[in-house]
Amino acid sequence: MNTLHQKINVERIMQRIDKLAECSSTDYGVTRLSFTKESEAAAELVSQWMRDAGMSVRRDQLNNLIGRYEGKHSDAPVLIIGSHLDSVVHAGKYDGILGVISGIEVVQTLFENGVQPDTPIEVVAFCDEEGARFHTTLLGSRAMAGSLRDEDFEAEDEKGTTLASSIRELGLDPSAYRLAARDPKTIKGYIELHIEQGPVLEQLDQACGVVVGIAGASRYEFRVEGSAGHAGTVPMALRKDALVGASEMIQAIERITLQYENVVATVGKLTVTPGASNVIPGTVKGTLDIRSIEDEQRHEALKLIVEECERISQRQGLSCYFYKIMESSAVSCSNSFMNVISTVLEMHDIIPFEIVSGAGHDAMAMAAIAEIGMIFVRCKEGISHHPAEEVTGEDMQKAASVLLDTVVKLTASID
Amino acid sequence: MNTLHQKINVERIMQRIDKLAECSSTDYGVTRLSFTKESEAAAELVSQWMRDAGMSVRRDQLNNLIGRYEGKHSDAPVLIIGSHLDSVVHAGKYDGILGVISGIEVVQTLFENGVQPDTPIEVVAFCDEEGARFHTTLLGSRAMAGSLRDEDFEAEDEKGTTLASSIRELGLDPSAYRLAARDPKTIKGYIELHIEQGPVLEQLDQACGVVVGIAGASRYEFRVEGSAGHAGTVPMALRKDALVGASEMIQAIERITLQYENVVATVGKLTVTPGASNVIPGTVKGTLDIRSIEDEQRHEALKLIVEECERISQRQGLSCYFYKIMESSAVSCSNSFMNVISTVLEMHDIIPFEIVSGAGHDAMAMAAIAEIGMIFVRCKEGISHHPAEEVTGEDMQKAASVLLDTVVKLTASID
Repeated sequence: MNTLHQKINVERIMQRIDKLAECSSTDYGVTRLSFTKESEAAAELVSQWMRDAGMSVRRDQLNNLIGRYEGKHSDAPVLIIGSHLDSVVHAGKYDGILGVISGIEVVQTLFENGVQPDTPIEVVAFCDEEGARFHTTLLGSRAMAGSLRDEDFEAEDEKGTTLASSIRELGLDPSAYRLAARDPKTIKGYIELHIEQGPVLEQLDQACGVVVGIAGASRYEFRVEGSAGHAGTVPMALRKDALVGASEMIQAIERITLQYENVVATVGKLTVTPGASNVIPGTVKGTLDIRSIEDEQRHEALKLIVEECERISQRQGLSCYFYKIMESSAVSCSNSFMNVISTVLEMHDIIPFEIVSGAGHDAMAMAAIAEIGMIFVRCKEGISHHPAEEVTGEDMQKAASVLLDTVVKLTASID
Repeated sequence: MNTLHQKINVERIMQRIDKLAECSSTDYGVTRLSFTKESEAAAELVSQWMRDAGMSVRRDQLNNLIGRYEGKHSDAPVLIIGSHLDSVVHAGKYDGILGVISGIEVVQTLFENGVQPDTPIEVVAFCDEEGARFHTTLLGSRAMAGSLRDEDFEAEDEKGTTLASSIRELGLDPSAYRLAARDPKTIKGYIELHIEQGPVLEQLDQACGVVVGIAGASRYEFRVEGSAGHAGTVPMALRKDALVGASEMIQAIERITLQYENVVATVGKLTVTPGASNVIPGTVKGTLDIRSIEDEQRHEALKLIVEECERISQRQGLSCYFYKIMESSAVSCSNSFMNVISTVLEMHDIIPFEIVSGAGHDAMAMAAIAEIGMIFVRCKEGISHHPAEEVTGEDMQKAASVLLDTVVKLTASID
């Protein structure tokens, strides 16, 4: 085991994360929407740090920031280390940022210690992963993966500004976005380090884990219809209470989901109409979010859930409808990258537990043009998208070390 | 069986109900809040109809309208027939009104046929039963029963006008309200005819029923607290989903309530926080409304519900809190009045099913100073407080006939 990782400067990582957190439009938490003066200020800082790390810096047509550290073979396919610079509203300071700053730290450690890898390395800070401003996610990584579409640029923020005009305001030409797409042949692979945003590593008492893939997801809206009525005058036996029906359905969703090892399902929204304390609920609307790394399990669980909800409504004299809002397939991480990451984790005395990412990441888009690998970092209580998001300095040190050794292994030889 | 009831003029009842429905501040349904120009217009019409029916008319200090038809013994305790003139927002045209207009029709039938009862009869149109304007119910009947309090007059409508000032605007002195209280010794009893506002009579295929009492009610707010989290990243086993917990509680409320013949329970309001499709619910707030004609059963069911909800929260790692909002005891109808009404129903070939009133009525307040009796009238699908509220002409005819014969029996001799 080489000792280069001991040169990782975790103080620098933490200082940079704190500095970026100042690029926020709110005092409470970090709010850094894309194509704003806050995101531009963040990009300025990151550009400078990339240059400090020995990288040449450019922005592509969608305002992704790309730092390049040359390899001995400058024509060889590049290893991309990436994550995003934008945040949700009132976010924490690690989501996305930890991956970008750790990537820069890895390159800076190579640079400061005179190590030039065989293959080139690029650190990419994607412009908009969260979709908090235009409600269309993975803008930067989809541009790079060539999967962005013209209609994406018509998306509007809450003030009615389109994505196209917000890009134009930065002096860029939105119609040139296809030029941001990368040729898969020029990419060796894509590595992303990210906070877990879940409680599994904390439960397992490990600083890092190796991601096996990003779960596929289905999102539905459902409606349960019964009959409203007076809470005092309608006997229990004559009621068609939509909320009693919906409650049994939520119990069934839980029960069915627990039969699958790799499925999670959530009813996150529920509205009850008319919604008065003395009126029996006539209608309930809700959302069902169901995810799995196994698309087949997700489809099977979904089918059982819908069938069971229909049985419940029939038995209770209700009607029940499901409408699909969106669906995405699961994305797998590269086996060879997973093997490298696992080996490195063991080198660092971390048990290489395999974790499914239930949340989306830029890696999901990049999988269309490159093998992907992801390293998850433990975060306190699994909290993210919240000012209370927290990662310990020790874990950041370990995570950057793991990323460094992974990158060293992946750039050591040309395939 | 006398044939006087054949003289009931149902056309007149229906015309008067339609005419009163025009005293509305909205085109959609009837909206007649108390102490408004609409309620004053309604009172003008009703006063005239009372005079047409041979009654002397006065208003008391709380703007209750009182028509008096003298008996042979003018000093004898009076039989009061009452219900209310006000409505909720977007109401139907029968709630309250059917009782007032049927009472006038009963007296007019006596008057037009030269029948003078032994004891005097008063028809009372109460000023505010619903509480739609000031959110304080039974204003008129509580004034008459002597249970109104000074603080009730501080209640404000949505524009900030107090009850006191709205009464003053009509030229009345709110501080004189105690003069509206009646001496129990001067009252023989109180009879109220009202639409059922529930589906029981329709299910039983009967035009009318005899009310045994008005259910007691408890209203609680509850809060279930778990942990919000990412819908994709938190495994099912590590979740503390407040909505999954609340669902099991709603099922338990249903199950426990069904063990009691005379209890109904309703969760009418439910709000889920944060309430996003991709976030596990962290908090659920709701309301529990529980009613029974048997106070003991209500208390027992409530105790079991709270205990079971606490067990459920503990098992699921949640917290659960109940807060009492209001409580009222059950009120029983007079056995002797129930017997008279039942006998009359049978005379009219109606099976005298005994029905519990789950909703509140002016009779509930009047029970403090008089024996009460109530006749329920079938309404379509049990719908009330809605423009779709509907009673057939045939049922109105039967109901007024039943009320007439009940009144004749109750006023035939001095006790």
